[in-house]
Amino acid sequence: MSLLVVGSVAFDAIESPYGKEERIIGGAATYFAVAASFFSHVNLVGIVGDDFSKKDEAIFRGRRIDTAGLERASGKCFFWAGRYLQNLNERVTLTTELNVFADFNPKLPEKYKDSQYVFLANIAPNLQRGVLHQVKKRPKLIALDTMNYWIERTPEDLKETLKHVDILVINDSETRQLSNEHNLLRAAKHIFKMGPSALVVKRGEYGAMLVDKNGVFCVPAFPLEEPHDPTGAGDAFAGGFMGYLAGADKKNDAALRRAMVYGTVMGSFTVEEFGPRRLTRLNPKEIHARARHILKLSQFKL
Amino acid sequence: MSLLVVGSVAFDAIESPYGKEERIIGGAATYFAVAASFFSHVNLVGIVGDDFSKKDEAIFRGRRIDTAGLERASGKCFFWAGRYLQNLNERVTLTTELNVFADFNPKLPEKYKDSQYVFLANIAPNLQRGVLHQVKKRPKLIALDTMNYWIERTPEDLKETLKHVDILVINDSETRQLSNEHNLLRAAKHIFKMGPSALVVKRGEYGAMLVDKNGVFCVPAFPLEEPHDPTGAGDAFAGGFMGYLAGADKKNDAALRRAMVYGTVMGSFTVEEFGPRRLTRLNPKEIHARARHILKLSQFKL
Repeated sequence: MSLLVVGSVAFDAIESPYGKEERIIGGAATYFAVAASFFSHVNLVGIVGDDFSKKDEAIFRGRRIDTAGLERASGKCFFWAGRYLQNLNERVTLTTELNVFADFNPKLPEKYKDSQYVFLANIAPNLQRGVLHQVKKRPKLIALDTMNYWIERTPEDLKETLKHVDILVINDSETRQLSNEHNLLRAAKHIFKMGPSALVVKRGEYGAMLVDKNGVFCVPAFPLEEPHDPTGAGDAFAGGFMGYLAGADKKNDAALRRAMVYGTVMGSFTVEEFGPRRLTRLNPKEIHARARHILKLSQFKL
Repeated sequence: MSLLVVGSVAFDAIESPYGKEERIIGGAATYFAVAASFFSHVNLVGIVGDDFSKKDEAIFRGRRIDTAGLERASGKCFFWAGRYLQNLNERVTLTTELNVFADFNPKLPEKYKDSQYVFLANIAPNLQRGVLHQVKKRPKLIALDTMNYWIERTPEDLKETLKHVDILVINDSETRQLSNEHNLLRAAKHIFKMGPSALVVKRGEYGAMLVDKNGVFCVPAFPLEEPHDPTGAGDAFAGGFMGYLAGADKKNDAALRRAMVYGTVMGSFTVEEFGPRRLTRLNPKEIHARARHILKLSQFKL
């Protein structure tokens, strides 16, 4: 089934205790699309500047990614520079230049308008809503990511958008901020009143948690001895998660659990190297082997 | 199989956003023994003052707990007073009075000396070692808990004791402090060089992790909407963990995984009410139902 993603395509400058990249392709939609393309066809909507070369675009080529929705504008790509501190748990943003992203107004190519699975990556909530208005009929599944910036600055807009969303995919601090509840079960109940019927909480090194009408499902993070760069891990998680559901064209409990596992797999590969580098070198065999490894590290018999 | 525990029996004063207890029985050995007694016979070694009444001792009666090793000294019981802040994640110690615990020198009754499973709760590492010297022959399994105090104050003593230990059961900050490694896999490798062949990391609301020669096993925390008091949860975890292994008289991978689950079960019940109150009201049916619930919230098929 077709999977639509709308979000940023960017250049990042990244420093971590493991090294430094001056300029590497990034952006939520990039990580999402590359990760999801291992499972499903992906319709990409984003905006790049004229500094985004044919060579840069190669990251999407040879994959099941349609870039007809990747708008080109005069100016520069969204640019983010950040530094991860020791242990990679904290990060400092050094620069954020919106550039062409400042005027991003997502437009869906005609052929994208019947997408059945939709992922609204972290952009302004009113733009996320604008995307939904362009889709012809109600998709089978709409998932959304957001961040503290929108929770603080445009709460009403975000609430309006959330009314149309099935699955909210955010991290634990965002969950707590949005719901004003520390306890994740109580937070989920609060969020269900806003519209979504499922909540996926990304917890970094502690794994991920799904809460919906069937209850709770937890998947551990894949233990890595030397993670190098956490950038994009959450977006790659979302890509594996939504990609799996779109590819399988299912949204029952068993499929959602597998989607959580494939999300975890894609996030874990992402952090192994800087930027999306490890993701772009992946093959399906490695992906399935890691999913089996996650099964091994969480299964038990009573 | 007989399970020996050596540790504190105490009175606690506890405040949390959910209420207040002026004086409730506590201590690591108390939580451990009550939790473990659902799975195995327990030999308890500890010390109490003359303020510990027959009525107080009733917490151990009617259970498979032998209190022949509970020494009575003149003076008062170990007393701890603490306050948990909003969200129960942080706690402030208001008072610590060692009292009779200051001169605690564990002596094993003759009948305890052939215990096959041994848990050394958090006391001075030289006393922990002294316990091992009193055991007649090498137990099948020795597990140990410790804390930042001993890691900082008596590191050489702790290292000497760790040489004799099979499983180290500590929380994540202690793991990092002891190994000087943030990454838990690297921390485990470091700790294996000190003696233990397995590491159990208690991660509070994030569950628990076992690392040994078979790899990694993760169990999620049982999600609770209203935890009231985290006191003793880690000790009850250890009690469920060691109690299961002693009761089953097994230490293979499948048994260790189940032990992790039963540890999680006992920890989760503990936090539902103040002190050990919920633990003392438990029945085996509730324990097994919660274990099945943990299976449900972590299982998936690929």
